[in-house]
Amino acid sequence: MNEEIADGGVHPSAHLPTDTNHVIPAAAPLIVDGWFHERGALWPGQAMTLQVDRVLHHSRSAYQDVLVFESRAHGRVLVLDGAIQLTERDEFAYQEMLAHLPMFAHSQPRRVLVVGGGDGGVLREVLRHDGHGAELEQVVLCELDAQVMDVSRRLLPSVSAGALDGTHPKVRLEVRDGAEFMRQAVESFDVIITDASDPVGPAQVLFELPFYQAVHASLRDGGLVCVQGECLWLHLEWITVTMQALRRVFDMVEYACASVPTYPSGQIGFIICGKGDCWRQRRTASVPAREPPKAMRQQLRYYNSRVHQAAFVLPEFAHRAVYPVEEER
Amino acid sequence: MNEEIADGGVHPSAHLPTDTNHVIPAAAPLIVDGWFHERGALWPGQAMTLQVDRVLHHSRSAYQDVLVFESRAHGRVLVLDGAIQLTERDEFAYQEMLAHLPMFAHSQPRRVLVVGGGDGGVLREVLRHDGHGAELEQVVLCELDAQVMDVSRRLLPSVSAGALDGTHPKVRLEVRDGAEFMRQAVESFDVIITDASDPVGPAQVLFELPFYQAVHASLRDGGLVCVQGECLWLHLEWITVTMQALRRVFDMVEYACASVPTYPSGQIGFIICGKGDCWRQRRTASVPAREPPKAMRQQLRYYNSRVHQAAFVLPEFAHRAVYPVEEER
Repeated sequence: MNEEIADGGVHPSAHLPTDTNHVIPAAAPLIVDGWFHERGALWPGQAMTLQVDRVLHHSRSAYQDVLVFESRAHGRVLVLDGAIQLTERDEFAYQEMLAHLPMFAHSQPRRVLVVGGGDGGVLREVLRHDGHGAELEQVVLCELDAQVMDVSRRLLPSVSAGALDGTHPKVRLEVRDGAEFMRQAVESFDVIITDASDPVGPAQVLFELPFYQAVHASLRDGGLVCVQGECLWLHLEWITVTMQALRRVFDMVEYACASVPTYPSGQIGFIICGKGDCWRQRRTASVPAREPPKAMRQQLRYYNSRVHQAAFVLPEFAHRAVYPVEEER
Repeated sequence: MNEEIADGGVHPSAHLPTDTNHVIPAAAPLIVDGWFHERGALWPGQAMTLQVDRVLHHSRSAYQDVLVFESRAHGRVLVLDGAIQLTERDEFAYQEMLAHLPMFAHSQPRRVLVVGGGDGGVLREVLRHDGHGAELEQVVLCELDAQVMDVSRRLLPSVSAGALDGTHPKVRLEVRDGAEFMRQAVESFDVIITDASDPVGPAQVLFELPFYQAVHASLRDGGLVCVQGECLWLHLEWITVTMQALRRVFDMVEYACASVPTYPSGQIGFIICGKGDCWRQRRTASVPAREPPKAMRQQLRYYNSRVHQAAFVLPEFAHRAVYPVEEER
């Protein structure tokens, strides 16, 4: 590891579209004339809007603005600080890809950590592996905001599908700051997934180098990290700089993406990092180490082995930016 | 060919989300408080909005409402009947994929027809092939609405890049109804691309079976058709029914998709059909027959050979719907 990085010589957040501290101005009304408007500094000049049937919950937690509404055409919608976190209609795309890209790229995931993900959707997907091609020992979920977990359990039960109930013998729930948890962690993991909101606001620490260095330290040899990686169309500079920094910490760093209609620009990406000689040699997580067994495959709606491989193929403009030193193809 | 189809036994338009005749209610204001709102019956309950700096053109042509505005963050934007056709920021993704998927899947495209595409973007991409791996004889563009061509030439010059000027020796511009052109056509083509707006409004005839049958008749043996194929997330039933109908006309029918942030749900698809024994045997257009030579590759921003292959890999929910009878994988 490199002192220069630890000292913040590269600070990816500086490469976001703006340097505002928050996704929305606090005064902006979220719902106007029956439509929710997702206006934010991270996607200037554009906004997804969804028709609202009924507001189910709106509060300010200790950390953020929490809104759940019943939409006209997308089921229930969870919004944090004005940014759509999920809709019942398309959440499976994000949750499946964030969880299954690292889980299926790993040949034997036993101990898994999810940082963030308080809605429980990624946890739900990780647990599908247990007894279906993997023998999980423990899955730890570390979420900062108890209110997000509580609201999700009550109002979005299909997202966690019981995984947040505290009754699953292999699940341990930790309600605390993910960066602090990583700093103090004495445990090690095969797969670490950070399911964070955007790199501004309460989740910002989960996108900074000290956090990634702690993640690296807690990762077993051969382990994989998968990080919510924003959008190629909106945040290419942030992605490029972040990946450059991560290449100095991990042995392999790649980018994959998926179509999620209700995220800004309809696409979200994942930064996947590997630790250990095996990843330095293999160089890519794009070839799954395992396939979903039939019983599991029938439950999946977005992921399959071909989707896994295709997700790593980036549009030419993004490929050039993200892999600038690649030899002539 | 099958009488039942010609008689309209299957009418794909019936499988769109609603049966309204038009994309927007005529009275709905398109721009409110400085933001353009793309509300439409084909994507109920959701609407992309773009911040407007200045309206450059707004008129009613003989066929449709034509709007061009300068946006805050997406360059200039062309809107027909309330539906975004392109923004200068991301149009390359759509134009490159609609043009290059069939062009690179074909080993020797010589005569090419573009139906619709009055903005000239697909024409621009097709012409890149001339002398770069293909020897084009003629490219015909058949657009219904002269006003769309005129407005695009004047206000969106980078989109057509001169291809609509009428000076290119291999380009022939036909200002007339595409369905009528196909019915009367005595010419034949290697590649036919339909770059139409949605299957309601003036372009509806370009999504109906008599049109596809005429396209089939004008296609040379070994030829390929690529049709704007709406969105997997919004119009899966329409796509499925349309592809079922097309399988009775063509020898191979496939679906591919691309990420285009300013189209509804951020994704658009392409229906690709092949005519002739070679496609019945090869069964797929997902493997390009040619690669872009280096000089051309440097001009492309979305397409490359790996993107070509990956575009045919669909999310599991869509794969099941679109290829229902596929043998167990």
